[in-house]
Amino acid sequence: MERPHLVRADADDPLSALRARVDLPPDVVYLDGNSLGALPVGVADRVRGAIEEGWGDGLIRSWNDAGWVDLPGRVAGRIAPLIGADVDEVAVTDSTSVDLFKVLVSLARLRPDRRVVLTDDGNFPTDVHVAVGVADLLDLEVRVVEADRLEESIDDTVAVVTATEVDYRTGARHDLHALGRAAHAAGALTAWDLSHSTGAVHVDLHAVDADAAVGCSYKYLNGGPGAPAYLFVARRHHDDLATPVRGWWGHAQPFAFSPEYAPAPGARRFLAGSPPILSLVALDAALDAWDGVDTRAIAARARTLGELFVDLVDERLDGLGVTVASPRDHDRRGAQVSLSHPEAYRVMRALIDRGVVGDHRPPDLLRFGLAPLYVSRADVWDAVETLRTVLADDAWRDPAYTQRTVVT
Amino acid sequence: MERPHLVRADADDPLSALRARVDLPPDVVYLDGNSLGALPVGVADRVRGAIEEGWGDGLIRSWNDAGWVDLPGRVAGRIAPLIGADVDEVAVTDSTSVDLFKVLVSLARLRPDRRVVLTDDGNFPTDVHVAVGVADLLDLEVRVVEADRLEESIDDTVAVVTATEVDYRTGARHDLHALGRAAHAAGALTAWDLSHSTGAVHVDLHAVDADAAVGCSYKYLNGGPGAPAYLFVARRHHDDLATPVRGWWGHAQPFAFSPEYAPAPGARRFLAGSPPILSLVALDAALDAWDGVDTRAIAARARTLGELFVDLVDERLDGLGVTVASPRDHDRRGAQVSLSHPEAYRVMRALIDRGVVGDHRPPDLLRFGLAPLYVSRADVWDAVETLRTVLADDAWRDPAYTQRTVVT
Repeated sequence: MERPHLVRADADDPLSALRARVDLPPDVVYLDGNSLGALPVGVADRVRGAIEEGWGDGLIRSWNDAGWVDLPGRVAGRIAPLIGADVDEVAVTDSTSVDLFKVLVSLARLRPDRRVVLTDDGNFPTDVHVAVGVADLLDLEVRVVEADRLEESIDDTVAVVTATEVDYRTGARHDLHALGRAAHAAGALTAWDLSHSTGAVHVDLHAVDADAAVGCSYKYLNGGPGAPAYLFVARRHHDDLATPVRGWWGHAQPFAFSPEYAPAPGARRFLAGSPPILSLVALDAALDAWDGVDTRAIAARARTLGELFVDLVDERLDGLGVTVASPRDHDRRGAQVSLSHPEAYRVMRALIDRGVVGDHRPPDLLRFGLAPLYVSRADVWDAVETLRTVLADDAWRDPAYTQRTVVT
Repeated sequence: MERPHLVRADADDPLSALRARVDLPPDVVYLDGNSLGALPVGVADRVRGAIEEGWGDGLIRSWNDAGWVDLPGRVAGRIAPLIGADVDEVAVTDSTSVDLFKVLVSLARLRPDRRVVLTDDGNFPTDVHVAVGVADLLDLEVRVVEADRLEESIDDTVAVVTATEVDYRTGARHDLHALGRAAHAAGALTAWDLSHSTGAVHVDLHAVDADAAVGCSYKYLNGGPGAPAYLFVARRHHDDLATPVRGWWGHAQPFAFSPEYAPAPGARRFLAGSPPILSLVALDAALDAWDGVDTRAIAARARTLGELFVDLVDERLDGLGVTVASPRDHDRRGAQVSLSHPEAYRVMRALIDRGVVGDHRPPDLLRFGLAPLYVSRADVWDAVETLRTVLADDAWRDPAYTQRTVVT
């Protein structure tokens, strides 16, 4: 396989046109969209307008005149089709951590006779910490099992099964269909973290019969650094679910300032404080990049990129000290490929210096995100070739590539 | 009293120079800074830079290269002196509702033998709802008493006393010194909501021996619509306080991705999910407007404006159907004056149409915020004069001023 062949394949792929929806620096192969998604075209102008005209000129009047009051619902309506949900099942609010807390408390209280929150050791550590915090409040127990034993560990002591669908380190992907079936057969509820799924693999929460889910909008959805998270709660639970954080934006009538609490209908009750308008405007503008995108087609493109990456590693990096740490079965992997190398930190620093931006996860992972909205086959080629050079030339041994913090 | 006298007094007041730090539309008398503060100069450029250079060009590297990783701490360090706190006692994160939830859970668990959360009916309704949600989780009881009976209602059943220092409707101000003394004498802890205090009245959490506090940064601090909130926890509790939401940014080492939870030192443990960078950049830039501002002097200016407002109402609106609903004792009032009028909603619509922007709170309040950073004596004159015209001419009876939602 050679580069010109891949350039032609990119040119023949109608999805390649989507890359024009983001602004990427010309000298960078960006494979860290699973950490911070690229900047979509138009975001800067929309936020500038929200600040100068909305906040500066309109002032308080912009809550109505600029539609700020409707913004959380508007953005929820744009995320819903990307996760196979209806708009009243989605709320865009807070962070993934806070949303997971709210969802886990709410679900666990629907199973008051059960004491176990079940998760796996491939979950994002924070999600486990959040679950332990919930357990500490509600006198529950968090049971952490190996990722591939999650399904068989579901029994009738389990109140909630929670997992991140795609492992942030290896990209290993759970089978949410199977987990959901097993959970419901045992009378347990499910709460999935879609942070590494939405915009990368095909997500259909109705199809997997999810009870609840949360996710991050600043990775594959390109909402910007620390963009608001989203949560999903299935309609069948709407009448029974109570949020532990009774903030005013989750009230049925926030502006009545009533001394009585009355939850808003549907997922909207999980809103809490005043919505972060500037961040929501950025996310709303960013989601223009997803307008009309077929989530099955884009997931297929991610798979193509992943297959190509693994093939090129096999073909061109043999004997250079890296191992594929991601599942080789493409059905069991998200839109990322991770390689292990004992000096992964230094190798990644050398790669970044050469314009290939992935990231490092302790202890030994090189992580490459293949955001299908804008990563091309030629990018994958260039990344693997640059890695080949860095490894073949021992470029990572340069003393410049020692200690420095790399952030998500 | 006449307008030229006030214009001269403004000109003689060195604090009048601070108005140049915000961009206000020329045709507006803006008295709603207690709901959404004005736009400080420089915010739009700083946010544009964070989007185009930070996010667009720097991408993931900006977490380090643009200092995003330090931004929550940096902003906490700028808010701390405005509330009489040390930087390690302050966290800038989430919304006021979420922060109050975290603080109330944490404090209540320090008094496991007590079952009462005490508050008053002048508290912002959401704060009471949040307290009831906490009580529901922890098997506590929320006791709501009349505002002027709060102090005498503190007894040894009370775990936490929580109140908003300045009443959002009337501007009535609690005596936090007296409440704190009474609470501590009874063995209770205190959690104050400073949303209508900081930047408006002199706040000194050390002086009132506060155990915890929360507050909103989009009112008098001008952080922008839905800007991140702040919370305070006194250093003496740092070793004992646990946040219920164990998000990764409150971990001692977020980027170690450890399966073990270890809280960060001090207030930083109350951070939760990934910080909202665009909103924090806006808030950081907005706080430039507070650089070098003497909080005692600015509080004195707010008092001057409040006295003037009440005097002008007495002098010029007699017999026109409005009553001063705020305390007349200036020591017992925040930086706002509220007037009652049976058709307050319609009167406010008429005022806004004439360029005087305050707001309406149900059922019958006209609310005028006197943000001391940028409101002038001449503004107060113009507002009262416009109100006089609207009332004297019955302009508010225009059918245009009927139903429409007004938002905080």
